[in-house]
Amino acid sequence: MSDKSSGIGIFDSGVGGLTVLQSIKKRLPKETLIYFGDTARVPYGTKSTETVTKFARQDIHFLMSQGVKMIVAACNTASALALDTLKKEIDIPIIGVIEPGAKGAVAASLNKKIGVIGTEATINSDAYSLAIRRIDKYISVVSHACPLFVPMAEEGWGEHRIAKIAAEEYLSVMKGKVDTIVLGCTHYPLLKKTISKVVGKGVTLVDSAEETAKEVERCLAELNLLSDGTGASIFYVSDNPNRFKLVGDNFLGNGSIGRVDKIDIDTF
Amino acid sequence: MSDKSSGIGIFDSGVGGLTVLQSIKKRLPKETLIYFGDTARVPYGTKSTETVTKFARQDIHFLMSQGVKMIVAACNTASALALDTLKKEIDIPIIGVIEPGAKGAVAASLNKKIGVIGTEATINSDAYSLAIRRIDKYISVVSHACPLFVPMAEEGWGEHRIAKIAAEEYLSVMKGKVDTIVLGCTHYPLLKKTISKVVGKGVTLVDSAEETAKEVERCLAELNLLSDGTGASIFYVSDNPNRFKLVGDNFLGNGSIGRVDKIDIDTF
Repeated sequence: MSDKSSGIGIFDSGVGGLTVLQSIKKRLPKETLIYFGDTARVPYGTKSTETVTKFARQDIHFLMSQGVKMIVAACNTASALALDTLKKEIDIPIIGVIEPGAKGAVAASLNKKIGVIGTEATINSDAYSLAIRRIDKYISVVSHACPLFVPMAEEGWGEHRIAKIAAEEYLSVMKGKVDTIVLGCTHYPLLKKTISKVVGKGVTLVDSAEETAKEVERCLAELNLLSDGTGASIFYVSDNPNRFKLVGDNFLGNGSIGRVDKIDIDTF
Repeated sequence: MSDKSSGIGIFDSGVGGLTVLQSIKKRLPKETLIYFGDTARVPYGTKSTETVTKFARQDIHFLMSQGVKMIVAACNTASALALDTLKKEIDIPIIGVIEPGAKGAVAASLNKKIGVIGTEATINSDAYSLAIRRIDKYISVVSHACPLFVPMAEEGWGEHRIAKIAAEEYLSVMKGKVDTIVLGCTHYPLLKKTISKVVGKGVTLVDSAEETAKEVERCLAELNLLSDGTGASIFYVSDNPNRFKLVGDNFLGNGSIGRVDKIDIDTF
């Protein structure tokens, strides 16, 4: 039985969701955050709905075994492909990153033209366009998959000249047309400066992480489940804890990630 | 019981091993080739020895369930991390790509300075250096991981200016020093022209695929298991058969891949 003092379970295919963890931690420092990165099967962004749903289901079952009071799908691909199915299967609240990101983009856009970038699977699912149009059907959406952004962020090349050339290539389809771009992948905040240079200062970049943290707070407050504890972050992965710590520290700033434990996700 | 007419089982984490399949097909057109790409869990190159061994074991069990007479680990990471362990577990011949690639590089090098490029896991394992030094201990080896080459090859950007900049970055450590470079990842032949431009025509690029095909022929001949059939290629994946066909056709030339079937690799 979960109560106020129970943790918030956060999962992602790998390190990307740490940007969401960081936003939640900043907004809700008293919460215990239990993070799971599925590093044995990362990435999700090139995989099918069936496979991503199966993986996300196991991720959620693991987090629920830790007695969490809420699940955050801190992965755009899992949120886009699997959330509707998995919501029906569990009895605690589950929040994805798509709806908050869409809401943030609609609030930011003045010309009602929004760009969305993400993994192949997220873009092909059309989840952002659908979520944006559910809020305002008069908004037009231009979407484009940027498969190289994730490995570039993981390589620590988010501000490298290679990232700039890739961004020019990928974003040419929306440059000069949209006034807002949704960073529809949790890795993309690491390329924020590069993307901003390419599309210009006039374009607002919406980071789902911050919007998701707001939604987590709103939902917990509504259910009277906000913690008054001391806060802690606990990390689990399905493979390579050392690599997770190394790449993760690059995400959060050195030394932010303490101990990382490995679990066998196939058994969940 | 396997005989001459049985197939050759080939596995890789994804589409990369198709370069090996192609070389075997060219050299041994009468063989039936059964290919498995573990697209649900691709890539292997960032994962641990324990996880890659577990995945490769399942890949092999699936291929053996198809009655193959030989296994080819057409994946450098699996060959580097898991082959020694898995060789002891099965009773049919298994050939990896490391030993043939090392042999080819030693034969090609005149100045006894060889470069090796591959995934993080392959380079960290030091498998190529060890294999090269087992043949000739006076050879010096410079290794470097090139994590962005795989996603670039999959994106169809093997000859894009981005690939050239990445190659300049990654290969600066060996440029002007080595006379031979081993392409220690089955994806890298798609960047062959780019790599050659960066390191210069004087450097021989050794493609493990061709060397591995020679080794397959030698081994089958020795065991009197060469087929005199009509030859066929059969494709299986663990996820997304359509994407495999699309990216795979980019590897082999359009239309080379016919039907692709999906299997549940977790059950093997």
